[in-house]
Amino acid sequence: MASSTAGEVITCKAGVVWEAGQPISIQQIQVAPPQSKEVRIKITHTSLCQTDIYFWKGKDGGAWFPRILGHEGAGIVESVGSEVTELKAGDHVIPSYMAECKECELCDRGKNNMCEVFIFNYLSGVAYTDKKCRFSLNGKPIHHFFGLSTFSEYTVVHMSCVAKVNREAPLDKICLLGCGVPAGLGAAWNGGKVKPGDSVAIFGLGTIGLAVAEGARIAGASRVLGIDINPAKEETSKRFGVTEFLNPSDFDKPIQEVIREMTKGGVNSSYECVGRVELMLAALQCSHPAWGRTIILGLDEMDKKLSFNPLEILQGRKLKYVAFGGFKNSDIPKLVDKYMNNEFDLDKYITQRMAFSDINAAMEMLVAGKCLRCVLQMDEDCPN
Amino acid sequence: MASSTAGEVITCKAGVVWEAGQPISIQQIQVAPPQSKEVRIKITHTSLCQTDIYFWKGKDGGAWFPRILGHEGAGIVESVGSEVTELKAGDHVIPSYMAECKECELCDRGKNNMCEVFIFNYLSGVAYTDKKCRFSLNGKPIHHFFGLSTFSEYTVVHMSCVAKVNREAPLDKICLLGCGVPAGLGAAWNGGKVKPGDSVAIFGLGTIGLAVAEGARIAGASRVLGIDINPAKEETSKRFGVTEFLNPSDFDKPIQEVIREMTKGGVNSSYECVGRVELMLAALQCSHPAWGRTIILGLDEMDKKLSFNPLEILQGRKLKYVAFGGFKNSDIPKLVDKYMNNEFDLDKYITQRMAFSDINAAMEMLVAGKCLRCVLQMDEDCPN
Ligand SMILES: [Zn+2]
Ligand SMILES: [Zn+2]
Ligand SMILES: [Zn+2]
Ligand SMILES: [Zn+2]
Repeated sequence: MASSTAGEVITCKAGVVWEAGQPISIQQIQVAPPQSKEVRIKITHTSLCQTDIYFWKGKDGGAWFPRILGHEGAGIVESVGSEVTELKAGDHVIPSYMAECKECELCDRGKNNMCEVFIFNYLSGVAYTDKKCRFSLNGKPIHHFFGLSTFSEYTVVHMSCVAKVNREAPLDKICLLGCGVPAGLGAAWNGGKVKPGDSVAIFGLGTIGLAVAEGARIAGASRVLGIDINPAKEETSKRFGVTEFLNPSDFDKPIQEVIREMTKGGVNSSYECVGRVELMLAALQCSHPAWGRTIILGLDEMDKKLSFNPLEILQGRKLKYVAFGGFKNSDIPKLVDKYMNNEFDLDKYITQRMAFSDINAAMEMLVAGKCLRCVLQMDEDCPN
Repeated sequence: MASSTAGEVITCKAGVVWEAGQPISIQQIQVAPPQSKEVRIKITHTSLCQTDIYFWKGKDGGAWFPRILGHEGAGIVESVGSEVTELKAGDHVIPSYMAECKECELCDRGKNNMCEVFIFNYLSGVAYTDKKCRFSLNGKPIHHFFGLSTFSEYTVVHMSCVAKVNREAPLDKICLLGCGVPAGLGAAWNGGKVKPGDSVAIFGLGTIGLAVAEGARIAGASRVLGIDINPAKEETSKRFGVTEFLNPSDFDKPIQEVIREMTKGGVNSSYECVGRVELMLAALQCSHPAWGRTIILGLDEMDKKLSFNPLEILQGRKLKYVAFGGFKNSDIPKLVDKYMNNEFDLDKYITQRMAFSDINAAMEMLVAGKCLRCVLQMDEDCPN
């Protein structure tokens, strides 16, 4: 399926952030053709994630503006570079920041999803291939984000950052499999290694925390403690597998003590889904001192430190970060198949649907914590 | 082999610390017979360990004086309690703080050597059975230490804290297998899981650090970096497997940076053998960001905190405490057999031998860092 636009620069709409924290500006931009190992994708749907907010605010130092954010999306391949053999125009895909170069020592060892070649490309604002931008506006380069930039009708990504998925799967739902939901499910499955009968504690009941809860429930956890300072989360969270909701404001002692008392010494695994070092500490301290595993999913300000007495880990407590649930790019098609096989749900995370043009309203809702996932439908009127 | 003293109170010499940091007072004390699940041991040899110094100074809060220290020793069973079936008078033994109750969830799971029942008994100053003392002086109770108190000609320990060993093995050498040497060997074998070709970094080249080096060498490490501020350690450490000695004072940048540069990104495993949170941080930061393992063996002041940016562990670095090398009481006889089989050496750790009566001189040498292990021979003139 050859595309009439292959090899051409495409002009289309994208959401550009010109300065940290400024509203996203929807503008016509130019998207260059893919280079030899790259793929140009027509994004059909994108959802918004807290990580977009983090980088929108420039918390990474803010060096990469103007920039096109977005890293949770789905779409259809428009054209591919000359050396791309495993993807072709028309393929349904999820762009993925958990890229696999398949050559580095980490990809090779297979025990970790943090490919050495691509991991730090996330934090850059340029294409991996030549460290330049494929996006521009009247010749002025516009930077990439996480190698993906899904807040654009067309984006160019490296072939290692694309998961080809079942064509039957609804793109307006599986776009969620680009970040938050797998991050949560995998944290429970691969990070906390939840087993039947386990107790778990989840700090922060946004999309990722709720996906942890669902992952724990699916894995057979008997007690799923959900911790959030927003009382409205109590009811929502029950639908995702939380069995006991705890609001730290309701107790006159630290929540980690409450949890240790409730669970005879501590939970089997705990999850920090907010991005605050104080909660990472609470998560560590509420886990069982000997066999507890604490999984960090959140990202605090770059200069914040986690501080604890080393005796806290004397008996064997484990502490680790788990990015994207421990999944790799190549796991995404399997997750899509599991979804199609009804092994987990996506609909209940989608609290809003909007047009791409309403992206600023969607950002505001997410900042205010008033939604789980808002799925944006990209405009259909740009050249294809 | 019945003992003439079985069932009787034994009067013998012991080293009593009356107040934190005061010289050890060698006095005649009374040692009660073992209770039903206890064993009374005639200690033949004891060595001194930095942990004795730590508790001698009362760094645990100092609640347990007067106290008999000592936790690295060997001896012969004098008598056993009525319910003890696996030990009898005359058995050669190493008293062991890595007790196994064989009933708790941790002993049962078998993945961790931190038996829940006994672990906190170390930090108490009383016998596990009845929370009282078996030692006394004119009726005044004298406290236990780590459940062992080897600085006494006779001691009473719980049967779960005794390893029966090969009778051919020299007690004046295998007494070292009660603490420091296995702690180091096992940190490399069980904690860092050193494999052929690995690079390792060891902070602090006392007995434990040198045992880590030897463990790494035996496991096939190709680069063993030894870090110490004492230049005299350079030569010593080479005999234990250190391939490159680094004195942080010789560099104008942090030693962790030096090590990362020397090892293309970081070592496979790093070991903190001093007990300072700053070195724990350096050890963490010199390990490979993705697959590095950092093993803490030292014990800092009780209120000190380890503080790091959680991003330090984003890519997968592991951090754990490994007590007694991950070995359990039941591993000690196997270590004795390995020693007898020449799989590792003990002689080179023994830098001094003294009579028990010189214990204060031995303590001073250890405080000054002027020895590795000093083995004390207990007097032979007390009732047997
Ligand atoms: Zn790779
Ligand atoms: Zn995300
Ligand atoms: Zn010791
Ligand atoms: Zn136990």
